[in-house]
Amino acid sequence: MKRNIVLVDPLPRTLDLIMTPDVRRRLAQLGEVVVCEDRQMPAEQVEALLPDTVLIFGQTDMPKERLDRAPRLKAIINVESNFLPNIDYQACVERGIWVITPASAFAPPVAEAALGMAIDLARGITKADRQFRAGVEDYGLAGNGETFRFAGAPVGLIGFGDLGRQLRDLIRPFRNSVRVFDPWLPAEIVERLDCMPASLDEVLCESRVVFVFASVTSENEGFIGRREFAMMQPGSAFLLMSRAAVVDFPAMLEAVRSGHIRAATDVFPDEPVAPDDPVRKVEGLLLSAHRTGGTRDAFYALGSMAVADAELIMKGLPPQLCRRADPATASRLRSKPVSVS
Amino acid sequence: MKRNIVLVDPLPRTLDLIMTPDVRRRLAQLGEVVVCEDRQMPAEQVEALLPDTVLIFGQTDMPKERLDRAPRLKAIINVESNFLPNIDYQACVERGIWVITPASAFAPPVAEAALGMAIDLARGITKADRQFRAGVEDYGLAGNGETFRFAGAPVGLIGFGDLGRQLRDLIRPFRNSVRVFDPWLPAEIVERLDCMPASLDEVLCESRVVFVFASVTSENEGFIGRREFAMMQPGSAFLLMSRAAVVDFPAMLEAVRSGHIRAATDVFPDEPVAPDDPVRKVEGLLLSAHRTGGTRDAFYALGSMAVADAELIMKGLPPQLCRRADPATASRLRSKPVSVS
Amino acid sequence: MKRNIVLVDPLPRTLDLIMTPDVRRRLAQLGEVVVCEDRQMPAEQVEALLPDTVLIFGQTDMPKERLDRAPRLKAIINVESNFLPNIDYQACVERGIWVITPASAFAPPVAEAALGMAIDLARGITKADRQFRAGVEDYGLAGNGETFRFAGAPVGLIGFGDLGRQLRDLIRPFRNSVRVFDPWLPAEIVERLDCMPASLDEVLCESRVVFVFASVTSENEGFIGRREFAMMQPGSAFLLMSRAAVVDFPAMLEAVRSGHIRAATDVFPDEPVAPDDPVRKVEGLLLSAHRTGGTRDAFYALGSMAVADAELIMKGLPPQLCRRADPATASRLRSKPVSVS
Amino acid sequence: MKRNIVLVDPLPRTLDLIMTPDVRRRLAQLGEVVVCEDRQMPAEQVEALLPDTVLIFGQTDMPKERLDRAPRLKAIINVESNFLPNIDYQACVERGIWVITPASAFAPPVAEAALGMAIDLARGITKADRQFRAGVEDYGLAGNGETFRFAGAPVGLIGFGDLGRQLRDLIRPFRNSVRVFDPWLPAEIVERLDCMPASLDEVLCESRVVFVFASVTSENEGFIGRREFAMMQPGSAFLLMSRAAVVDFPAMLEAVRSGHIRAATDVFPDEPVAPDDPVRKVEGLLLSAHRTGGTRDAFYALGSMAVADAELIMKGLPPQLCRRADPATASRLRSKPVSVS
Repeated sequence: MKRNIVLVDPLPRTLDLIMTPDVRRRLAQLGEVVVCEDRQMPAEQVEALLPDTVLIFGQTDMPKERLDRAPRLKAIINVESNFLPNIDYQACVERGIWVITPASAFAPPVAEAALGMAIDLARGITKADRQFRAGVEDYGLAGNGETFRFAGAPVGLIGFGDLGRQLRDLIRPFRNSVRVFDPWLPAEIVERLDCMPASLDEVLCESRVVFVFASVTSENEGFIGRREFAMMQPGSAFLLMSRAAVVDFPAMLEAVRSGHIRAATDVFPDEPVAPDDPVRKVEGLLLSAHRTGGTRDAFYALGSMAVADAELIMKGLPPQLCRRADPATASRLRSKPVSVS
Repeated sequence: MKRNIVLVDPLPRTLDLIMTPDVRRRLAQLGEVVVCEDRQMPAEQVEALLPDTVLIFGQTDMPKERLDRAPRLKAIINVESNFLPNIDYQACVERGIWVITPASAFAPPVAEAALGMAIDLARGITKADRQFRAGVEDYGLAGNGETFRFAGAPVGLIGFGDLGRQLRDLIRPFRNSVRVFDPWLPAEIVERLDCMPASLDEVLCESRVVFVFASVTSENEGFIGRREFAMMQPGSAFLLMSRAAVVDFPAMLEAVRSGHIRAATDVFPDEPVAPDDPVRKVEGLLLSAHRTGGTRDAFYALGSMAVADAELIMKGLPPQLCRRADPATASRLRSKPVSVS
Repeated sequence: MKRNIVLVDPLPRTLDLIMTPDVRRRLAQLGEVVVCEDRQMPAEQVEALLPDTVLIFGQTDMPKERLDRAPRLKAIINVESNFLPNIDYQACVERGIWVITPASAFAPPVAEAALGMAIDLARGITKADRQFRAGVEDYGLAGNGETFRFAGAPVGLIGFGDLGRQLRDLIRPFRNSVRVFDPWLPAEIVERLDCMPASLDEVLCESRVVFVFASVTSENEGFIGRREFAMMQPGSAFLLMSRAAVVDFPAMLEAVRSGHIRAATDVFPDEPVAPDDPVRKVEGLLLSAHRTGGTRDAFYALGSMAVADAELIMKGLPPQLCRRADPATASRLRSKPVSVS
Repeated sequence: MKRNIVLVDPLPRTLDLIMTPDVRRRLAQLGEVVVCEDRQMPAEQVEALLPDTVLIFGQTDMPKERLDRAPRLKAIINVESNFLPNIDYQACVERGIWVITPASAFAPPVAEAALGMAIDLARGITKADRQFRAGVEDYGLAGNGETFRFAGAPVGLIGFGDLGRQLRDLIRPFRNSVRVFDPWLPAEIVERLDCMPASLDEVLCESRVVFVFASVTSENEGFIGRREFAMMQPGSAFLLMSRAAVVDFPAMLEAVRSGHIRAATDVFPDEPVAPDDPVRKVEGLLLSAHRTGGTRDAFYALGSMAVADAELIMKGLPPQLCRRADPATASRLRSKPVSVS
């Protein structure tokens, strides 16, 4: 009788990180689970398992030759969340092997933090706490000199994937007008969610709060630079929530330092940030150490989405929760792989 | 021909503070506007105007004798927002004189800030910024050791007036279960807004995030004390948004200092807070100098609500935006009058 | 020791109609309940009870002299739902006696039916069923010649009290623009619920679906007549949900018969409608025999709201669920009393 | 220079049916448009165009040999809405040719009508109109003997694709509990939209209103039959909105005729229905001649979604609005092709 190997090669994740005991039990019912999580699974172990492997959870290299030796493989489920160039995507498509990732697991915590940070910038929450601790707080109206209401403020979204749509849902009670710049989407998608499709320049000129949720691609590195920050309204708020590489980081810092805008960032060109990096001293900048997405619940969602889709695939049904790798667009993405969770 | 005097005696507010030019024009159309805003309107001026006064905007003393000398008076519109014992409420009721206040103008900015602060406490936003500035930030999962998701966390509301209901609307997308303690309300009001009526103890025991929106009355001073804080779940968040007097403030600080809970407060027993008050150093406490309500837009809303209701009253219609003074409940309230805006 | 009489004189309602056993138990805890429900409570019985009566549920005549003989009376709770001229409202106000009614209990079922009827008129549901039964149905696109989508159609509301606001909530997912004509309300109330304040003419000209929720007053009888129907867009839908007297009924029927508009009505100038009334044959008119409000759950809500507010009043708190009689506006209302439930 | 042929072979649709002038202009900018809409495009014409064809709008047969002769083909966009076995789907996948359909264009009008019909069944709208016309109407409570409120009634959905999710959104203000049976979906998808995953039997037993939105597959023909109808609560409502073949139609009619349930159906085993079919006489059945989806706006949405995705595809981006044919699941679907719009 045939074995059904479920090859688990999850680094930089570990099973404990991404699966609750309950989900792990569901994983075990998918087949014979073979795990290697202290290092990347060694080539000889992979090779030995390939003939009976039906599912791969992880980022194992899967060139054409390996795919050829895995005739029963149904899916490769990337639990790191960025598609890497170590898989022959075209061969997978031709074979009907699903290559998917539960990357959207990180969208809810990031969107939640993004809203918290946006209210913070608008209303001066962190800044007022800092002033209070320094003994220089202002009360009442005097303490609201530079604040504005997030409710009703024109909002702009740069990038309208999982993250942008999550944020859009969270801010509905605030009744903002919302402009969206996303060159990968048709107007219909934007309008269905009660937003206005807009150019990048319109988003920057017309919004009081701008959220950046765009992925890095080969085409958009540094596309928000000095010219773009200059377009923003004085006193408006800029939140960088996706990847540092989409902005000209020094230009952003300069726009904040000069008092033209205020900003929040969860990402930095080099992480960890150097101890003496002057970014640490910028007034008007809300600092977050790439920590808005990596919450415990998000990692667990990564695992439960992966297993739920694997269950569907084993029944011959298409996955519903994970994103599929499209060979064409996968090649445009430039995300750096994550080295630690 | 009779004059229609609109007596404006708005201290501690001023007309510029509470009315945009547009609203001020509408005010002028209500009658002959007489303003005294550098001090309380002198008695002799009030007396001279009473016979022709149809509307009072402000906190003028109006005992029975003055009411008797104001036979055409239709409404007294308090623009400070707390009803004071300087009016003969019963006489107003008998005469059909509306005594109203647009106090709910402050609810939207407070609720917005309360949500921002709640996400801040849950996700550690201000704290992470402080750590980053101190060079001791943690990245990714390591930076989320003590955080929790606001989305889905059980929420408790103590007090369910304008403020509590505004907050309830703002958090709908986060799908929290919401328990409400408000002894002045029937279960139906709470349930209609998809909340669960609960006792104070249930709110404290079952919630991960507790918001205090209760007014101070003669019956509830300091009703949240040591026993109540001890009931809260370890690591939960407590937000004091209404009046300091409803809690035992030292007990709250002790609960935070000990690490049992984290908290945010917009109010303090004595304001301004003394320069050397140790409250300024409490880790785990988010400090706000009574500034969440006093935004420019809230003051303008105060004026526009007051004028809109005055317009209705002059047409013989009931006011729709302001709250009415109920003689019975007005006497239970213990808010301190505001001395400055 | 004093008795606390709860005088229950509910005709045309009965206690079984308006209270579930559970609510009836709560009623019993308010005091000593004395019920007369086979006829109006006889004068001698009322007189005997007045000295100890604390609450009245029903439509008992309460002129000044009776109020004077009821020194402990706290509230009169009208369970019919229309305020009648059989109470000295001014004396009640002066005494601090609440005069209230849970009339809004009928709003939810009426709004639900109004939406059902609006979709029916827009999409031709009842008409298509009638054609199918007659063997003349059209399939697919051919069956949609005169239909339009309710979603996105401009909606107009005439009257924006409980009913209009309930309907407004129900149609949110359909993303209609909504114009509101209500001369008793300030623009702020309308705008807060994402509607546009408008004149009657604007509502009629700009809407594809017009709902009439207005009460009859001494000033608005027949205010929607030939001129107004002529203003409506050809093929638009008109729903009369409140009182027949606000429209010129023959003018409405003529507008429907001519094919200019389609309509639904839940009310008629004389009810029951005569067997040979030609209204029964009008194509394009959806007929409902004053039945959208009178659902079993609405009657039970009448009772539970009445008892919940009585509970608050007995604790010295203001009612929260019922509407208060304002002496000034009560006198403008012209609703006919209901003779049967 | 190369021609970019856009081959348009849309029968049973026509371009006028599915594209407004504005969308048609956008179509023209995609390439050189060649249309055949009075009949299926003749083989010789297809063959002549294949070498330069980049896009196909329509249901042209595309076996492997034709695909091989269309080396520049990027997408086949089915505007009928059911995937048929006349395309070599596997070859398309291997070539990276998108095979998509804007079938979800029909979901909004069907969901809207489904809600209208559900309120109709719950509240007896069509039936009350019929009784009124027959002179046997009942007023007020008497007219509500068999009605129930749709608001709050437990709802069951069988099938949770585009249609089910649209309906779920529309009923949010009614606060129903919603159970979902859909064996193709993981629990997460159901729960995210605030529904409860359930078995078919649970849906039938626990719901007061059951909507059938399921597609027909090789596995589910007639899966709702006598046993299933017997499980339903007496007086509950059943709405058949997708395909007649998923139910045992005679069993459904019997359940309605016996008075056990009430029902609405938009589909019939044979359409058009025979003039003497007894279905036309069934009391308690709301009849609709397969007309809830085929609204003018839905056909226009079909065209605009098709063109918007074609625009993305021509830019090298993945389609966002249309559904992709998954070779595996496409083969399970059993919808009959539409012969006329």
